[in-house]
Formats: sequence, C-alpha cells, structure tokens
Amino acid sequence: MALPEFETIRLDEMDNRVFELVLARPPANALSKQMAFELRQAASWLAGTGAARAVVLRGEGKVFFGGGDLAELSSGGDMTPSNLNEMTIDFHGAIHRLATMDAPVVTGVTGTAGGAGVSTVAASDLVVAGESARFVMAYTAAGLTPDGTSTFFLSRVVGLRRATEMVLTNRMLSATEALGWGLINRVVPDDVVVAEARALAAKLAEGPTHAYGGAKRLLIAGASSALAEAMERESYAIAQQSVHPEAVEGMDAFLNKRKPSF
Amino acid sequence: MALPEFETIRLDEMDNRVFELVLARPPANALSKQMAFELRQAASWLAGTGAARAVVLRGEGKVFFGGGDLAELSSGGDMTPSNLNEMTIDFHGAIHRLATMDAPVVTGVTGTAGGAGVSTVAASDLVVAGESARFVMAYTAAGLTPDGTSTFFLSRVVGLRRATEMVLTNRMLSATEALGWGLINRVVPDDVVVAEARALAAKLAEGPTHAYGGAKRLLIAGASSALAEAMERESYAIAQQSVHPEAVEGMDAFLNKRKPSF
Amino acid sequence: MALPEFETIRLDEMDNRVFELVLARPPANALSKQMAFELRQAASWLAGTGAARAVVLRGEGKVFFGGGDLAELSSGGDMTPSNLNEMTIDFHGAIHRLATMDAPVVTGVTGTAGGAGVSTVAASDLVVAGESARFVMAYTAAGLTPDGTSTFFLSRVVGLRRATEMVLTNRMLSATEALGWGLINRVVPDDVVVAEARALAAKLAEGPTHAYGGAKRLLIAGASSALAEAMERESYAIAQQSVHPEAVEGMDAFLNKRKPSF
Repeated sequence: MALPEFETIRLDEMDNRVFELVLARPPANALSKQMAFELRQAASWLAGTGAARAVVLRGEGKVFFGGGDLAELSSGGDMTPSNLNEMTIDFHGAIHRLATMDAPVVTGVTGTAGGAGVSTVAASDLVVAGESARFVMAYTAAGLTPDGTSTFFLSRVVGLRRATEMVLTNRMLSATEALGWGLINRVVPDDVVVAEARALAAKLAEGPTHAYGGAKRLLIAGASSALAEAMERESYAIAQQSVHPEAVEGMDAFLNKRKPSF
Repeated sequence: MALPEFETIRLDEMDNRVFELVLARPPANALSKQMAFELRQAASWLAGTGAARAVVLRGEGKVFFGGGDLAELSSGGDMTPSNLNEMTIDFHGAIHRLATMDAPVVTGVTGTAGGAGVSTVAASDLVVAGESARFVMAYTAAGLTPDGTSTFFLSRVVGLRRATEMVLTNRMLSATEALGWGLINRVVPDDVVVAEARALAAKLAEGPTHAYGGAKRLLIAGASSALAEAMERESYAIAQQSVHPEAVEGMDAFLNKRKPSF
Repeated sequence: MALPEFETIRLDEMDNRVFELVLARPPANALSKQMAFELRQAASWLAGTGAARAVVLRGEGKVFFGGGDLAELSSGGDMTPSNLNEMTIDFHGAIHRLATMDAPVVTGVTGTAGGAGVSTVAASDLVVAGESARFVMAYTAAGLTPDGTSTFFLSRVVGLRRATEMVLTNRMLSATEALGWGLINRVVPDDVVVAEARALAAKLAEGPTHAYGGAKRLLIAGASSALAEAMERESYAIAQQSVHPEAVEGMDAFLNKRKPSF
C-alpha cells in the first residue's frame, strides 16, 4: 500500500506497523490551512486503512507544534471566518480520527507545545515529553478562543480549574508541572524523547489493536455520557470483543500463563 | 428482615445498620456469571430495602477482586457474546445500584484490584486501601475492552489521560500512586484495612442517609449534565430535602451548637 | 452608568474597569434569601452591561462565605420548599452569569469557604486563597444536599472521588490541600489575598475580554458535551472571533513582537 505524500507533514512507516506522523513546517511547525488539510488526509488514511498498529506523532526540529500560523491567520494573510471554519473542520477532523481510531497515538514533545499544540497533546492517547518541553495555550494571548478539541479534552485531563487557568492566563507549564497535572505521562531527557515514544509505540503495536480502539472510543464516549448509557455501551463492546481473535488469544495466554501474541 | 444468602458472595449485617458485602470466591474472587447475578441481587436488596445506612465492600482473603473469571469467560468455558451480555447487565446493574443507593459504600482493598476490581473501586463512594494494594486495569492484556462502568467513573476520578494510560498499557498502580491520583481516599497498613473501612462506614451510618443518597445521585447525574440542568436538579433536591427530618434535625443541631442525631 | 446598590452585598468599581463584588453580611457572610436575590441582580448587571473587564469576588471581614444562613433556612425561619426553590433559582442564576459572562471572576478566599462558599469557589474562574483558608462542603452535616452548582463544577475541578469525599464526610481542606487538589490556583499570606486577587484581576482586565468570555463558555459547554459537538462549537467560535478587533490586534502584536493593547 503506497503511503500518501504531503508537503507540510510526513507519514513514515517504521518497523512492525508503527507509523510516524511528523509535523514538518520548521521552525515552529505552525498550523497552516494546507497543513490542517494534510493532517486530515493522513489521519483519515491511518484510520481508514487500518495499516498502523501504533502511531508516533512528533514535530520536526526543536519545536513540537507552535500552534496556528498567525501570519496566515491574521488579516495580513488571506484568512476570513469562512476560511478559518474550513481550516478548523480539517484540523478537528484529523484530531477526531487520531483520537478514535484503533491504533494508539503516542505523542513525543520536544520544545514548545503552543495553542493547537497543547490541544493535540491533550487529545493524544499517551504523551512523552522532554525535560525542557513547555506547554502554553496561547490562544487568548492573540485574542482568540481555543480550538483543536481542547475544550473537550483539556479539562478532562487536567481538571476544569487548571484548564481555565491555562486558557485565561496563558500560564506556561514546564514538563514537570505538566506531569504533575496529568497532562503528560512521562518526562525523559530531551535527546531520548523520540526514542522513548517509538519504544512505547512499538510495545503497543504488539498489543490487541482492535481492543485498544474499542477502549479509546468507550473512554471518549463515556467522558460525556450518562452512567447508564456508558455501561450499556461497555456491555455490548465486551460481548462483541470476547469472540474476536485477540480476546480468544489473550484469554488463552492468560490461562496458560504465557505471553499473548496478538 | 431475613438476609438473602448467596454462594459466591456474603451479605452480613454488622452493628448499627452497617452491612458488609464480601466477595467470596477465593483465591482471586474472580467474577463469574453466578457472582455477577448474586451481586445484582445483593445490590438490589440493599437499594430496595433501605436496610443499610452504610455498606463495606471487600474481598475474602488476600485479593480484593481479581476481575473477570477468564476460565469461565474464555472459549474453554461456556461463554458466548449473549452470555457475556447477560453477565455484564447483571454486574453493571449491581454497580449502578451501589453507586446510586442512599447508603454510602466504603470499599476496602487488600492485595490486587484487577479489571472489574478497578472498575468497582472507581465506582465506590470511598476507598481505603492497604499499603501493598495494587490496581491494574488488565482488560486489554486479555484482548478485552473495559467494563464495570469504568469508562464512566475512571476518567472522572483520575482524569482522562491517566485513565487512558491504565487502559492501554495496563500500568499497575501502587497504593501510594493511587492515592496521589485520587483513585482512593486513604492508605493504611494492610492488616487494618477492614477495621478502617468498618470504622468509616460506622461513622457514615450515623449520618443523614437520605441526604447522602441525594448527594450521590446529584454527583453522578451532574458528572454528565449541562450546567443549567445540574443546577435545576440541585434546586429541586435541596428544597425537598429541607423539610426532611434529617434536615430539620441537622439545621437545629447546627443552630444550637450540638451534635445532630440523624 | 450608576452602580446598583444593595443591602447584603456591595458592588464597587475599581480602576480600569475592574469591579469588586463583596459579600457583606458579617460575621459569616451567610447566604440569605435577600442576598441570593441581590447576587443575582449584581451578576445580571455585570453580565448585562458588560461594564466590567474583570471581577474580584471576596467576603467582607475574616470569613469568605460561610454558606447558607441556616437560621433563615431552618424551620425557625420562614423557609419552605417553595421559598428555598426561589432562593436557589436566584443563587444559581447568579453563579451561572458569573461563570459564563465575558469578564473573568477572580475569587479571593480568606478564612472559611463553607457549603455554598465552596460551590462558589468551584465555579469561579481563578481562585487565590490565604494560608489559613479552609474549605468544607458542610451540606450533609446539616442534613442537606449540595447546591450552588457544585455537583457540576466540583467533580470537574477536583475529580469525582475527592468531590464525593468532600460531600459525604465534610472533610475540611487546608489551603495547601486545596491547591494540591486543583481546587484553587494560588496560596498567599492571608494579608495579601485581596491585593493578589486585585492584581490578577487588573492584569486580566487588560486582556481580550470578548475572547475570555468565549473561552469560558466553550470550557463549560465542552465539559458536558460530546467530542464532536465541542469541536464544532470551537470551530464556529474561533472563526467569528478571528475578525473581532481583539484578534486583529492580538495577532498583529504577536507578528510584530510587541505587547498587544486589547
């Protein structure tokens, strides 16, 4: 299967069905209309083909993802509310597919995650950050409201008080603070962020991909559902999953005290 | 009122309308179809009779609740998607009644809480754990998706990032980590877990049982409601509760600087 | 524009469109029917006129907000379920407008926040507390169920486990504990709480007021919305905001590396 090619991002196939999605608009990897469109195409390809069993998401160079490209967004560019609507539809479509597809998304953060970069972090499945990583919402600093699905994910990840503080004051979090608040899962030296994210993705790529997808979708749906609705959804999901080859293998391995081969 | 009797669990009446619900399928207290059915019956009895003013939930022996009985769930057993649907309906019915009935549920965890055991912890009102307690979701390790209402409760208790990590990586939390993440309320030496859970339940059994139930249901409903809906529900509840004998006594005791007798 | 005058609260205009809303029913600033009505009027005035660019909310004297006035609420007073319904409709109307209006609300807590006082803290945008501040839900201690929008905000701020503990056990949090749980944003010496809250409000009053309001409403709506709904709401909001003078100025300032003047 030929990999799609892009101008502002790269989609690379690594070993064992791990894919790497790289933001490649140096120096800030800022989100342009083109990049939003390409991210949506890449995410649709990953979600649609099922080729990946895990995805590493990272930025090219020293900055992870500096947020929206204000040069393009501002009146100096060709941006209008219509165009910005189009752009966020693309970007949100990308985030939604990454968040709900089967393959887990492990995000590696070096340098700054700003604005849409924090939104992307909040929406990722797992996040590894370097010691010098920084997280700042930044939207209101430019007179804008948040996007990137952050008003769904961020408060559910760090709590509504801290999400509000990040949005109103643009407080910049260090990697250690972000870990303490539960925004990220692990802090490592800067020069091993990519290696750690790849190692984690490689491990997840050996896991039950279909069950991972079901779990991701249950967690997201459950985060805005009534209790009774969440529990009925769980019942249906586990009943269907229980006869999937992954579950047959997983339960057999558990009962025979061996490592499962998913 | 005769207590119902079961094969896989025990329901015991302690002093002062504290009841103890004990998972009794050693060594792992694993959830079988029979146990799910009996848990639902016990929870319905507790919720329906109103006999209890507080409930201690614990496991017999060293393990709290090891999760689903995979020997029965796997293809080696007689489990089919239909049967698993039946089983989760029973189990979820039990959890729902425990979470929403008037009497607070104090869960005491010694040893491992795995899979449905973590779900049960997340859905409990208060949790006391021993120093050597361990918490691991475990579902995806067996190729399964989460159940036990965990996709409603777990992310609302520890945040969506940490819930996702527990579900995808099956990271095992120590008691200290679980306390830091807010999954449990208190860590005590292993040999006093049951005594501490009973002491806490005894204290709650002296409290305003009807107000506790109202508060539990408001918190669960509010966790998936719009702001305006939650506040209207609160208005109605406190207005009705204000003329309940508990409130008449509680407010009088406060005004006269004496201990209330609920 | 003449400021409205009240009996149980004060609404003062400070410099630079910062307003101060002061609970003024010493010694406990307890919520009476009159005070709930006046809070609603004040909040409606602030939300309706748009006069404020930031609001400081604090209590007169040593106690921030001791909760409902039980002397009035109890049977010794003239309170009936009908009257309590009226009172909570007013109080909730006040909280809802403060939480969703454009101007950020910075709450300064000295002494005790009890019952409705904790609800108000949970619903505030940012909270500064003194070292000796204390937070206790207190509702069930008086045989009552929670109100003040706490069953929406509190669990989203501190997590459902800790919210449940606060409601069922009336555990009293110190300022340090409240900070660790994310209930408040900052702890300072008692004698500088008001100064710190005012300084923070003054800084926010220089910010993009319209974007702040959009962000506040997105965060609250997103906290109970499905992902797809939250992201469509974000798209629309940022597109409309992008041509607002705040965004034009904010983006231009960013691109020209100067401080914006909102």
